Amino acid sequence: MTNTKMRGVLSPVLTPFNPDYSVSKPRFVKHCRSLIEQDVGLAVFGTNSEANSLSINEKRQLLDLLVDEGLPTQKMMPGTGHCAITDSIELTRHAVELGCGGVLMLPPFYYKGVSDEGLYRNYATIIDTIADARLKIYLYHIPPVAQVGISLDLIERLLKSYPENIAGIKDSSGNWDNTLAMLTQFQPAGFDVFAGSESFLLQTLRHGGAGCITATGNVNPAAIAHLGATWQDDDADAQQARLNEVRGVFQKLPMIPAMKSAIAAQAQDPSWSVVRPPLVELTQEQAAQLKSGLAAIDFQIDNANALAHLDA
Amino acid sequence: MTNTKMRGVLSPVLTPFNPDYSVSKPRFVKHCRSLIEQDVGLAVFGTNSEANSLSINEKRQLLDLLVDEGLPTQKMMPGTGHCAITDSIELTRHAVELGCGGVLMLPPFYYKGVSDEGLYRNYATIIDTIADARLKIYLYHIPPVAQVGISLDLIERLLKSYPENIAGIKDSSGNWDNTLAMLTQFQPAGFDVFAGSESFLLQTLRHGGAGCITATGNVNPAAIAHLGATWQDDDADAQQARLNEVRGVFQKLPMIPAMKSAIAAQAQDPSWSVVRPPLVELTQEQAAQLKSGLAAIDFQIDNANALAHLDA
Repeated sequence: MTNTKMRGVLSPVLTPFNPDYSVSKPRFVKHCRSLIEQDVGLAVFGTNSEANSLSINEKRQLLDLLVDEGLPTQKMMPGTGHCAITDSIELTRHAVELGCGGVLMLPPFYYKGVSDEGLYRNYATIIDTIADARLKIYLYHIPPVAQVGISLDLIERLLKSYPENIAGIKDSSGNWDNTLAMLTQFQPAGFDVFAGSESFLLQTLRHGGAGCITATGNVNPAAIAHLGATWQDDDADAQQARLNEVRGVFQKLPMIPAMKSAIAAQAQDPSWSVVRPPLVELTQEQAAQLKSGLAAIDFQIDNANALAHLDA
Repeated sequence: MTNTKMRGVLSPVLTPFNPDYSVSKPRFVKHCRSLIEQDVGLAVFGTNSEANSLSINEKRQLLDLLVDEGLPTQKMMPGTGHCAITDSIELTRHAVELGCGGVLMLPPFYYKGVSDEGLYRNYATIIDTIADARLKIYLYHIPPVAQVGISLDLIERLLKSYPENIAGIKDSSGNWDNTLAMLTQFQPAGFDVFAGSESFLLQTLRHGGAGCITATGNVNPAAIAHLGATWQDDDADAQQARLNEVRGVFQKLPMIPAMKSAIAAQAQDPSWSVVRPPLVELTQEQAAQLKSGLAAIDFQIDNANALAHLDA
């Protein structure tokens, strides 16, 4: 691991499945490669990756595959937080050994109403067990889904104990006040705050933040990365407005099936629409709504050509 | 698997840990054996087992260990429902191959607000993949923790498709109206309804239900099993009242640490109080409150002697 910290735009990479729900490895590699080519980092195994619908072994194999395929480990921030601390340790250690730029770590999310002390022990035990200066943890705060969140007090305590290993956070609270508090309290000390979606990208960068990790990076990578790179230009607000317009269409539907459906349609590859249970693909009506919504704003997926006509 | 269905009282078996958070296998086996001796079935890997704090491999090993130690597989109902369908299939298949009497299956619980269709596909895919008539699934409805629940409509649909494999439910909603609806709609067809705690044991049995699967079975096994066996006797209401009194003391505190603390104290074995993050053991004040609360109702753990003085 170098001293180059991860910045800019990353995406929780969609995980493509075959109709029998097995992972489509060729589609996965091709999609990752296309994101990297558009300067979007690989936050594989995020919420929008259906990561919690994958077993540890599946995740290990996919990470190994990306490395074998020569994709840059410095641009990888795999999700490695699980309910079981033994799982979190296993996958995190593997990511560190592969040289991943960082890991994005959910708190254990089964038990609800747990204390900051319990969450502190979770992260501390993982860090102490792995005991490797290369480990860079980005905390993952997503209370709408995980229900268990990362408080400002917890960040402060972890940073104090493990300044080398606690590298930043993805804030998917959807609450700008919370992001701003993190930017104010912790970013100056080098704790990198990533917005949880591109909706807050410009605001986050203007307040000194590191970038964003966003689902729609899967379908609109070039434009989001462009704003990440040119946010000080005069047209930044116009760029942000266009990003919001695109996101708005996807956000009206269940996001994961909608993004997969859009890729399937534009790449003419129906397999791309498969999601694992408990998710379900879009209904025909929803798919039609998505199609007309995207047409109405004259939007096409950047990387559809790169993904097209792939045999599993 | 025989035609003998599981009935009566089971307990989500507490998982004892060593101070370094590794599983204490000798304590686990000894505790399981003591429960069986008191006629309490082994719902290992339940919520109160900290099951979601264990990896799949840890669960496989523990189940193998119980079988190797000669504990009766017909009395085992391991929790095998995970967020990832691949994990659920792996552990469920293993349980079936070992001859477990049933499995208790959480729905995938990371993604919130999922549809009944998505949950149906989860269970259907697991059943279709394992394709074994010996598989007996007890659905696990625990919305306060999992947030994702099992609706009456979902039960009806699953029962219709898989009458051989869908064996019953544990209702940990804490909502008697819901339990009663299941008892009325599905129990007559042989779908066995287990109350989620002994608080509802007598009511459940009087309405034709199968029994209960209860956390406090870990600390009050004989008395709960006795009511399960003698619920038609004249003193049943008095028995229920006493069970409620005991549960009331534990329920005032975080249940898992409280039960472990009580066993640690009575067995004079401090290691028993260890919980894995994100849970934390009782504070000294809480432990004192528990001790005085149990003393005030003159309660001693049945099986403390069986568990005492065990070296890890």
